[in-house]
Amino acid sequence: EIVDAIGKALASGPLAGRRIVVTSGPTHEPIDPVRYIANRSSGAQGAALGDALAGLGAEVIFVTGPAEVPPPKGVKVVKVDTAAEMRAAVMDALPADAAVFAAAVADWRVEQPATGKIKKTPDSLPTLQFAENPDILADVSALREGRPGLVVGFAAETDDVLANATAKRARKGCDWIVANDVSPATGIMGGQENMVTLISDDGADAWPRMGKDQVARKLAAKIAEALGPVSR
Amino acid sequence: EIVDAIGKALASGPLAGRRIVVTSGPTHEPIDPVRYIANRSSGAQGAALGDALAGLGAEVIFVTGPAEVPPPKGVKVVKVDTAAEMRAAVMDALPADAAVFAAAVADWRVEQPATGKIKKTPDSLPTLQFAENPDILADVSALREGRPGLVVGFAAETDDVLANATAKRARKGCDWIVANDVSPATGIMGGQENMVTLISDDGADAWPRMGKDQVARKLAAKIAEALGPVSR
Repeated sequence: EIVDAIGKALASGPLAGRRIVVTSGPTHEPIDPVRYIANRSSGAQGAALGDALAGLGAEVIFVTGPAEVPPPKGVKVVKVDTAAEMRAAVMDALPADAAVFAAAVADWRVEQPATGKIKKTPDSLPTLQFAENPDILADVSALREGRPGLVVGFAAETDDVLANATAKRARKGCDWIVANDVSPATGIMGGQENMVTLISDDGADAWPRMGKDQVARKLAAKIAEALGPVSR
Repeated sequence: EIVDAIGKALASGPLAGRRIVVTSGPTHEPIDPVRYIANRSSGAQGAALGDALAGLGAEVIFVTGPAEVPPPKGVKVVKVDTAAEMRAAVMDALPADAAVFAAAVADWRVEQPATGKIKKTPDSLPTLQFAENPDILADVSALREGRPGLVVGFAAETDDVLANATAKRARKGCDWIVANDVSPATGIMGGQENMVTLISDDGADAWPRMGKDQVARKLAAKIAEALGPVSR
């Protein structure tokens, strides 16, 4: 904590004094003790973003599902598995100046995970009853008290990327959507590069294909610009 | 290949001249381009086993799903995602003197994975139709031509471990079953230790709890003993 305090005192950059929540990675939703449903997400874009925001001086609370890419240095890491746990961790981390939801959260969970391993029986296949997961982006966007000044969602789409992402922004009530095309053909999922379109009140700004770390630095700079200087 | 040949010529130890197929890790069965069903398996026990067998001089073909733990050095690594791909890779790797199936293969796959991301629609939950996956252990055990002399399966159980594993051995037609209790309370899944019972024609031999690398070395030694010296 002393080191923390020193770190904060020394923090400089356009985001010094700002607290930003970042979610990253997939969530794992249990089917039984040995099986689960997951989203493909290496956590690379989220980790790069956490790193870029911390690099600009922000205090970053990094809420991450079980990602392949390790969390960045210099952030507060909160590890979770399920969407429900991620929502709780995000709410715990508020208030914040901004929240960036880069995690690939499962839309559905299995309603009643089995407590024992589901056995394979001849001529019988399991049926899974699903329940809708909490919508963390919509919930935080709709907060009446303690809503972060800037709420940023991600939209990983495979079809009609711009239309789906624009509709998602309106539906969730967030300020910005970072849309990207994760069709297998793009090689973006699991890769080092990303090609995103930033959707805001100003319309849709398509960025060229670039490294995920470059996307992160560019987005972090935009966030710093949007939040402006800390009033002291 | 020259290095390979030199490696083989130099190989010494009780398994020199033996070819052993090892499977490891989970399989991932796609739901749509961004979602999949997985088994919890770090791949730690399989990697330790590949390492131990290679250490005794065996030529190891290491067929691995997307595991957390990296594959061992000194083995031929074949990377797969799904159970169907794992089966094909195993059949390609035969003939072999022994086959050890340490992977946690999904029993079921989604019958028709969606080609585009399944959209979240209000008041509507997805239904997944499952199909049974190929049973690699049973298929290899039942081979009339080219069956490995020793076929070893693993049984990760949460309930009635010994009874379930003994029944599994009879049902699959394999020679040995390495049974372990992966109940969350044991901490074995994802951990460094394992506690197994080796089930063979000689009955059930319960080993004390030990490191996964120790389990691997003990099992590799048993395999070397069972295969005996290579006839030249």
